[in-house]
Amino acid sequence: MYLLIDEKGREYLVKGVSDVHTNYGVITVEKLRKENVGKTIESHTGRRFFLLKPEILDFIKKAKRGPQAITLKDCALIVGYAGIHSGSKVVDAGTGSGILAMFLANIVNPEKVVTYEIREDFAGIARENFKKANLKNIKIKSKNIYDGIDERNLDLITLDLPEPWMVVEHANKALKVGGFLVSYSPSIEQSKKFYNALNGFRSETVECLLRNWDMGVVRPYSRMLGHTGFLTFARLIEK
Amino acid sequence: MYLLIDEKGREYLVKGVSDVHTNYGVITVEKLRKENVGKTIESHTGRRFFLLKPEILDFIKKAKRGPQAITLKDCALIVGYAGIHSGSKVVDAGTGSGILAMFLANIVNPEKVVTYEIREDFAGIARENFKKANLKNIKIKSKNIYDGIDERNLDLITLDLPEPWMVVEHANKALKVGGFLVSYSPSIEQSKKFYNALNGFRSETVECLLRNWDMGVVRPYSRMLGHTGFLTFARLIEK
Amino acid sequence: MYLLIDEKGREYLVKGVSDVHTNYGVITVEKLRKENVGKTIESHTGRRFFLLKPEILDFIKKAKRGPQAITLKDCALIVGYAGIHSGSKVVDAGTGSGILAMFLANIVNPEKVVTYEIREDFAGIARENFKKANLKNIKIKSKNIYDGIDERNLDLITLDLPEPWMVVEHANKALKVGGFLVSYSPSIEQSKKFYNALNGFRSETVECLLRNWDMGVVRPYSRMLGHTGFLTFARLIEK
Amino acid sequence: MYLLIDEKGREYLVKGVSDVHTNYGVITVEKLRKENVGKTIESHTGRRFFLLKPEILDFIKKAKRGPQAITLKDCALIVGYAGIHSGSKVVDAGTGSGILAMFLANIVNPEKVVTYEIREDFAGIARENFKKANLKNIKIKSKNIYDGIDERNLDLITLDLPEPWMVVEHANKALKVGGFLVSYSPSIEQSKKFYNALNGFRSETVECLLRNWDMGVVRPYSRMLGHTGFLTFARLIEK
Repeated sequence: MYLLIDEKGREYLVKGVSDVHTNYGVITVEKLRKENVGKTIESHTGRRFFLLKPEILDFIKKAKRGPQAITLKDCALIVGYAGIHSGSKVVDAGTGSGILAMFLANIVNPEKVVTYEIREDFAGIARENFKKANLKNIKIKSKNIYDGIDERNLDLITLDLPEPWMVVEHANKALKVGGFLVSYSPSIEQSKKFYNALNGFRSETVECLLRNWDMGVVRPYSRMLGHTGFLTFARLIEK
Repeated sequence: MYLLIDEKGREYLVKGVSDVHTNYGVITVEKLRKENVGKTIESHTGRRFFLLKPEILDFIKKAKRGPQAITLKDCALIVGYAGIHSGSKVVDAGTGSGILAMFLANIVNPEKVVTYEIREDFAGIARENFKKANLKNIKIKSKNIYDGIDERNLDLITLDLPEPWMVVEHANKALKVGGFLVSYSPSIEQSKKFYNALNGFRSETVECLLRNWDMGVVRPYSRMLGHTGFLTFARLIEK
Repeated sequence: MYLLIDEKGREYLVKGVSDVHTNYGVITVEKLRKENVGKTIESHTGRRFFLLKPEILDFIKKAKRGPQAITLKDCALIVGYAGIHSGSKVVDAGTGSGILAMFLANIVNPEKVVTYEIREDFAGIARENFKKANLKNIKIKSKNIYDGIDERNLDLITLDLPEPWMVVEHANKALKVGGFLVSYSPSIEQSKKFYNALNGFRSETVECLLRNWDMGVVRPYSRMLGHTGFLTFARLIEK
Repeated sequence: MYLLIDEKGREYLVKGVSDVHTNYGVITVEKLRKENVGKTIESHTGRRFFLLKPEILDFIKKAKRGPQAITLKDCALIVGYAGIHSGSKVVDAGTGSGILAMFLANIVNPEKVVTYEIREDFAGIARENFKKANLKNIKIKSKNIYDGIDERNLDLITLDLPEPWMVVEHANKALKVGGFLVSYSPSIEQSKKFYNALNGFRSETVECLLRNWDMGVVRPYSRMLGHTGFLTFARLIEK
């Protein structure tokens, strides 16, 4: 796999098995294979492209995703505030397009992430994303997490579900003491119901606003994502 | 080490070698050692405390720090946007109280984080923080990073320094292609100078506002950290 | 009345009937009366003070207020989004310390603002604030607005009350078509209940985050008010 | 003039001299003239429209504007933080499409707003906007404010200009003591230069983030204006 970046910063993730057609002309597969990372390649119209070797992060950013897929900032906060790392035991539900599972898998590796998804169409999209990124430490489980969690002694359970409160009791059994149950909800009413259902947990609910700056003129960009979701971090403190 | 949480959510990180004196009375060391995590202990005044086993995250949160130490949200974004993971090669400067180095070390383990610090007083505080957290994969280097970086083929260099632009050329040599140079600056003028000095990099500058919600009355808290620092993520794309 | 500003920007609103005792020494009443606005006065310790003639704005900023009194930014948004001006007919409830009534009165003058308050202690504080500011076009009514609104053909009704939904039907009768009912609530749950009760209105709910910048180092201040209240602007479109 | 609002909340400002063609069908001019405000009219396809009498606010919202025209929230803050009201003496520059001048004129009426504009094309657009809104208390002056301000004893000068620092000395003469010079700049570098040029002023720089909530699902909308401009409020305290 190759990562090409054009002069405008647009990124192209390509396999290198055929010619690449871009907004700025064609790059032949021969050229691509011959060149080294860190060098520039020219398209047939003479436009420059930077050549990189893609990392997991690039696969996550380029993964096929639904309109409501969790953003990178929220993935990052989950890892940071739950304190997970290589070896942490994590369950994720629902899988959706698998963005969060990929992010978590990259951190906990070589430990496996188990991700619950009942919709086979979503599981299919996720499986494709995992494959492209060559991530092997994710297991998709075709089970409704509202019915229970099979795993035990977990460090983290992440929920991106319409009724996260249905998982609280199961999480109580599945988490180790000190582990985190994290719910991501677009609506504050969902977060409130989840909060009300927590028992044996200490929780904190946050939202993260990320603002990008145009450093040419030194001002924030006009366009901004005003909201993604509320994150509730619930730590199991009693069992 | 033990982590005690009182009824108000206040946390106490204790060694368990002597009695613990809290706002809510005394907990004897005998009681502490006898009890299991996930259970509650009573102080001599009858107040309840939850008993947990501290994780790295708890040591980071409780580490001795200066007033300007980087916050957890910014640490999390650095890891998320630079895509690092177990095995990533990271250099950090300056160490300060060591918060970011601890956070990074927890992620890249078993790989070592190298952190540059010229002030021996800061290095001392950091060393103490690392020891308490039992983090062994951090190496403090007593060298000014403005004079050069010894390491090569790095995935990430993090800067929390007054003149980050002094490091750009060194980073060019030390980073692998596709690696990240991340600078954290309180002032947008510093960020602008850093941005102007970048050569061979593709960059993005962001700031993160984190808002905590009081879920009892369903409103954000009045008190909020209005600013910590601007984060510039510069990816080396040409070498 | 005189407005004194010291070197740190602290403001003192004084009557000029006795000596002024400040953090930076004493200014005698004789000195005060002799000097012209736009000039500086020295305290007995030689510190400089700027002398100004206070405006309504200064009286509003210096008014006696409770901890939850509405902020200037929210007052400003109400005036701006409801489009009121000299001559607009406005009812306000509850008065509280009278901050919003003062702000509105300054805009609609010479028209009168009618403000409803059932607690005589609050009315007393408000009356004192109005008197100090020499604002004569505010009438405090000792009546519960949940029981009805006496005025008709209003341009604006402002609510800073725990149960704003109790006023919707009364507002329907009291407002002219095109007029605004604006509710200010700290909790989003209150805003939701108010929103649900609206009938015959078109509404929009907003929150305003104001960030102050330290222009010396060109960065936002760390301290920020993370929340004051949610503002719902409901315009009567059907009658 | 008539204001029509369709079922989706879209607003149509019409003169009532010809039939109205909307996304939801045609409303004949006869129907329009016969109906009373606060009533609904049906289009020829049977869709309902609410009929209102437009206020100045509606004309401001519907005024012809450039892409960078100042927003309502910033207009509102200027009025609020400068404390102006009916009778305040205000100079505005540059006029642009006249949005801020309209907003100010609505507040200071019957006093006149003087607005400086050197580009005749902008003045033409502004003149048209003022005429539509039937605002008669605005005078457009074809003069470069960098060359001086003719008016004296002003309460407020508002600047929406690329080089606001060029106006500071003129403002010193034109403002009364206690009056405000307010600059609106998209870039923080412009704000910094303006701040550095201030002499005899006490200033504060703010930015306002306004977040709209979708009260159906009780969450902020995803789309948000991440930035409009930085507002510097400089009060003349020494003369």
